[in-house]
Amino acid sequence: MRDALVAAAFQLFLERGYEQTTVDDIVALAGVGRRSFFRYFPSKEDVVFPDHERCLADMTAFLSVGGDEHEPVQRVCDAARLVLRMYAENPTFSVQRYRLTKQVPGLRGYELSVVWRYERALAEYLRGRFAGEADGTLRADVVAAAVVAAHNNALRSWLRSDGEGDAGAPMDHALGYVRAAFGGPPAARAAEGPEDVVVVVSRRGTPLWRVVQEIETTLGRG
Amino acid sequence: MRDALVAAAFQLFLERGYEQTTVDDIVALAGVGRRSFFRYFPSKEDVVFPDHERCLADMTAFLSVGGDEHEPVQRVCDAARLVLRMYAENPTFSVQRYRLTKQVPGLRGYELSVVWRYERALAEYLRGRFAGEADGTLRADVVAAAVVAAHNNALRSWLRSDGEGDAGAPMDHALGYVRAAFGGPPAARAAEGPEDVVVVVSRRGTPLWRVVQEIETTLGRG
Repeated sequence: MRDALVAAAFQLFLERGYEQTTVDDIVALAGVGRRSFFRYFPSKEDVVFPDHERCLADMTAFLSVGGDEHEPVQRVCDAARLVLRMYAENPTFSVQRYRLTKQVPGLRGYELSVVWRYERALAEYLRGRFAGEADGTLRADVVAAAVVAAHNNALRSWLRSDGEGDAGAPMDHALGYVRAAFGGPPAARAAEGPEDVVVVVSRRGTPLWRVVQEIETTLGRG
Repeated sequence: MRDALVAAAFQLFLERGYEQTTVDDIVALAGVGRRSFFRYFPSKEDVVFPDHERCLADMTAFLSVGGDEHEPVQRVCDAARLVLRMYAENPTFSVQRYRLTKQVPGLRGYELSVVWRYERALAEYLRGRFAGEADGTLRADVVAAAVVAAHNNALRSWLRSDGEGDAGAPMDHALGYVRAAFGGPPAARAAEGPEDVVVVVSRRGTPLWRVVQEIETTLGRG
């Protein structure tokens, strides 16, 4: 029933446009009553993003089971990948929705509020992990925003290319950039040779991000 | 007239609540007609954020006049400070609005869309500066998001403390954290001693952000 409502809604959104489609039109095409629609979706906007609530719940659960054995920045990068996985489950639907969201201002606003909830979930996890450390909330908020921005950069590139090809490798690359700036080393690597010393020599005028790249390469994390 | 409408609106929002106040109530208290209200504000929500359009225009103008002499990350940090300055111009009003926005979901949505526009303005500038470089759009999007998150972290701390004290120093600290992760050196410093060599020695297990802090300190940029 839920899937039938989503399918009917998208058929009408594509045929007539989002604004010109009413909930009555959707339930008529799906052959169900209005109450059935509102049992699944609080509003017409929610049927456009039917899986975000589940994905947010999955993300929160994923973050809540992780203990101190997970490097925090790596952990939120892995949590962000759950969103990509949801989009990649149905590329055709994801690309249709992407185009629709770009055209309808109300849906863009809805999407911003969803993205904000993902970002808060990541930030809350990091605030917990960084609790008691210097600048803990600042670092948590900045890293969460950076992870979401990197994720969305890779996701939107994939959606703009009509969902063709594998989104996983570009996503790894984008999230790797954030880890290079903020992340600690993987726990396993830290345990391998904790007494190793790394020496980096750099001209004073070198941009810091280039120095970081150099360190990444030296440490074998690049 | 515009200021009188804002003052009347906030008086009523605080007395009766935002949802319970109509545009008719506001114009009646201000002693003007409905058309005057809508000449200044497209909707009731806009009167809550009367200065963001001006600030967005200021930010865009600020970024458009800067040439290649400005280090890009430093430049967007300076652009973000324009938003803090707008809030700091009237601490009482800013604190009232902060409390109102936390209580009214519709205003939170409006604020998210405003924040998103600031972030896009910063990202567009950075995309221009990083054009043709490897990962240019990725870096632009991530740095813009990080700057906005750092700015909002410092801004909200100040608003939560009722707008007491100087917000400038905590803002410098928050933006400095982002610059440490992503920014190049100030142009002047790079010119001072371009042939200086900096050596950083670090244990392999050290978190990268600590290494970056160490480099910052060594370079005297911390």
